Amino acid sequence: MRLETTPIDIGTSRPLVLLNTADANELGAHPLDRLRIDENGTTTTGIVKVTDELVEQGVLGVTEPLHYVRGPVDVTLAGTPRSVQYVRKKLNDIELESHELKAIVQDIHENRLSDIELSAYVSGVYANGLSLQETKHLTRAMTDIGQQLSWETPVVADKHSIGGVAGNCVTPIVVSIVAAAGLTMPKTSSRAVTSPAGTADVVEVFCDVEFTMDEIESIVAETNGCLVWGGGVDLSPVDDAIIRAENPLSIDPPGQLMASVLSKKRSAGSTHVVIDIPYGEGAKVESLADARELADDVKRVGAHLDVAVTCAITHGTEPIGRGIGPLLEARDVLAVLHGNGPESLRLKSVRLAEMLLAHCGVDASAADILESGQALDRFRRIVAAQGGDPDVEPADLEPGSESTTVQADRSGVVTSVDNRGLCELARRAGAPKDTRAGLVIHKSTTDPVDTGDDLYTIYAETASKRSAAESLAERLEPIRVRSKTDALVEQR
Amino acid sequence: MRLETTPIDIGTSRPLVLLNTADANELGAHPLDRLRIDENGTTTTGIVKVTDELVEQGVLGVTEPLHYVRGPVDVTLAGTPRSVQYVRKKLNDIELESHELKAIVQDIHENRLSDIELSAYVSGVYANGLSLQETKHLTRAMTDIGQQLSWETPVVADKHSIGGVAGNCVTPIVVSIVAAAGLTMPKTSSRAVTSPAGTADVVEVFCDVEFTMDEIESIVAETNGCLVWGGGVDLSPVDDAIIRAENPLSIDPPGQLMASVLSKKRSAGSTHVVIDIPYGEGAKVESLADARELADDVKRVGAHLDVAVTCAITHGTEPIGRGIGPLLEARDVLAVLHGNGPESLRLKSVRLAEMLLAHCGVDASAADILESGQALDRFRRIVAAQGGDPDVEPADLEPGSESTTVQADRSGVVTSVDNRGLCELARRAGAPKDTRAGLVIHKSTTDPVDTGDDLYTIYAETASKRSAAESLAERLEPIRVRSKTDALVEQR
Repeated sequence: MRLETTPIDIGTSRPLVLLNTADANELGAHPLDRLRIDENGTTTTGIVKVTDELVEQGVLGVTEPLHYVRGPVDVTLAGTPRSVQYVRKKLNDIELESHELKAIVQDIHENRLSDIELSAYVSGVYANGLSLQETKHLTRAMTDIGQQLSWETPVVADKHSIGGVAGNCVTPIVVSIVAAAGLTMPKTSSRAVTSPAGTADVVEVFCDVEFTMDEIESIVAETNGCLVWGGGVDLSPVDDAIIRAENPLSIDPPGQLMASVLSKKRSAGSTHVVIDIPYGEGAKVESLADARELADDVKRVGAHLDVAVTCAITHGTEPIGRGIGPLLEARDVLAVLHGNGPESLRLKSVRLAEMLLAHCGVDASAADILESGQALDRFRRIVAAQGGDPDVEPADLEPGSESTTVQADRSGVVTSVDNRGLCELARRAGAPKDTRAGLVIHKSTTDPVDTGDDLYTIYAETASKRSAAESLAERLEPIRVRSKTDALVEQR
Repeated sequence: MRLETTPIDIGTSRPLVLLNTADANELGAHPLDRLRIDENGTTTTGIVKVTDELVEQGVLGVTEPLHYVRGPVDVTLAGTPRSVQYVRKKLNDIELESHELKAIVQDIHENRLSDIELSAYVSGVYANGLSLQETKHLTRAMTDIGQQLSWETPVVADKHSIGGVAGNCVTPIVVSIVAAAGLTMPKTSSRAVTSPAGTADVVEVFCDVEFTMDEIESIVAETNGCLVWGGGVDLSPVDDAIIRAENPLSIDPPGQLMASVLSKKRSAGSTHVVIDIPYGEGAKVESLADARELADDVKRVGAHLDVAVTCAITHGTEPIGRGIGPLLEARDVLAVLHGNGPESLRLKSVRLAEMLLAHCGVDASAADILESGQALDRFRRIVAAQGGDPDVEPADLEPGSESTTVQADRSGVVTSVDNRGLCELARRAGAPKDTRAGLVIHKSTTDPVDTGDDLYTIYAETASKRSAAESLAERLEPIRVRSKTDALVEQR
């Protein structure tokens, strides 16, 4: 059937298409069916919704992910994508072969899987796991499908954190130290999905983060490094779709995680990578034993792809740094580069930079580069190259004007600082959309506390979001104070 | 936030709501987030899409499942539903407790689970199974949440097929026999979801199938039976949502299947039920051993709910009857009631009716009731009570005028008649939407065949659908003929 097309303004990550009821009946198409759309030799897939009013007969309404389609187009009913049988095979706990994983990745890439099918894939991988062999095949398939970068230097340094820790914005500091030591470190980072700030959101407080490949190359040529948003370059395009299914379920199966991370690193042309694995109660990896196992596996899969991986197993039970939210984390980063700032952020950044330098065979002291001001100087050059003001000072970074400080209602000791609760709270206050919203943490676990001591401050850009965060704070108790004599965690 | 509402004409089974970008930003709502919607003391949930154009600031666009909501409403961002943690628990293969299954059923019922979460539930149940204990709890939860019928007679007969077999429209015949024998059999059936005809679609060829509870009661009072669509009475409301997630994945985990079937029977007030379990290659249950195990389990769960279950394990490798599609199956049904028609349909119907009569303690011969014309008479009374023409004859039922007969391209023997392929073909020809579309099967497995013999006929209402079915037929080979001397199934 040949149809004209018209853009429909619905923000959706899925490629929905609207068919008039008459056309849908003629095609035999029902809601959720997939429509194959051919336009001048290119083919894509849309997911059917039916309407009497929003589009007329003879017209196909296309939502945002398909706005590039400008009719007329030929549409036919598409069958179930072939990879659904491999998804079912994984649910049946049967090991998938290379071509089967490739078909799944291909179908995800071409938007052929519905949310139901995508979720079944993620659920199957979570419930039944991926063997090391499957992980290797999956990583290869995810690498092959995206853009691939290459650099002239033989050693290209990179880092990655598997996430789950609030604050933790070590990347701008590590890149500044490593680039100052003469290594190439073209870092791509993500924006927040469920967290209050991704590294790209934090860097954007200082300068632009969206660049074309050519622009990134010239920034790196000039400064040895960059701090850009990875979404601008199509490195591992199926990753976002997979994450979109994992997030609502709060699952992150290790095999998929490894494939996602390593395919991105491989596509980015990285040769030497430090992977930060935070572990502990409430973190993605709960025990030290699990963290060690994941580290061994990821090194093995990395070797298969010619990426030399080393892992940093770190404490993941509480935030790193004091600020949570784009601007508040940016302020911590700048303070550390200026030689002060939160000790936890400074220590972790230096330690990771040190590991990465040694891993790349460079004999230089990360601590010296930071303390001598070379890292700050390098950071300023990167910010300038990315169109920002190199001379910004921590005091220039003003958080939202609506604030409340939450105080201890008893004396004792801080028994837990909950990453998840703090992230939820910072988001409720408006982060990451409201750049200047978030939290500042005043206490860490084991700190002694008196009644009335400040625990944390909420910053928001509007009074209504501040008060929404205040109500949530009352329910969450993200920083827990207990009497010193109370040996129990809780009584039930 | 208080918003006016406006209906948006998008046919979707999910309760999507459209927020203007400005309102979405103020709420901190992103696409796929859930919105809690309060209107005069009632609460429901919508899934967020964001738009600049389709609704103005201050207005909430509501799609079909929420068209009953007529603003103004109060909206707030709703968190992740509590049952998602139990879904994750099932993915982790930990047995769920009664209250956890209840929470999942409740959240499905109130539309709080997204497709991703719903699919993860179904995937978890499929990958890790349900224990007998879990199945009992789930059945109870699914029963408790819907409407429940009660009848004055102490014995209420019912039947159910777990499906997967083309044609197989035994229900109108069984109900006619059993009701003629004096038992109460208020049968509710479903419409096709992925098949070319549900029982309700077939019965609709003769008469109406959508009735209110009061109307059903008076039909049953008059005729002892009824043949109505179950969707009109809210018996196990979460079942449809679960099926919607299972279908695209072609999975039907036994525990979920039992809970779905038995909760419906319990809610319908049935006391004695025959469950038809077709087994064999290509059927839902592949082996006789699996069919026996399922039969034992379903009897056990039934007993827990005070439903006396007996199971008929039947051949499920090929269609029952000759017609596939609403009108063509209706024609077979009527022919059998008239004393002729396909032998496979007659035999299976009589056998099931016989089992059900014995199971209910009634001493009567199903074959006699059919042969004496009492069943036809009873069927006519039910059709009349449901507003149809009781005097319709098989010859009055004319299939679509566009037809093609597919013939054998070699001589030999029929080695397989594939349910799935035939169903797909009948749907491509237009069934169930086009009532008069579908297939007539001329050969069964092990039938000898000469080159040029008719294998099956495709009927469609339009030439374009006939030709679409013809092209599919060429690819599928749903009836396979092999040389008698060829002992192999296939060579690979």
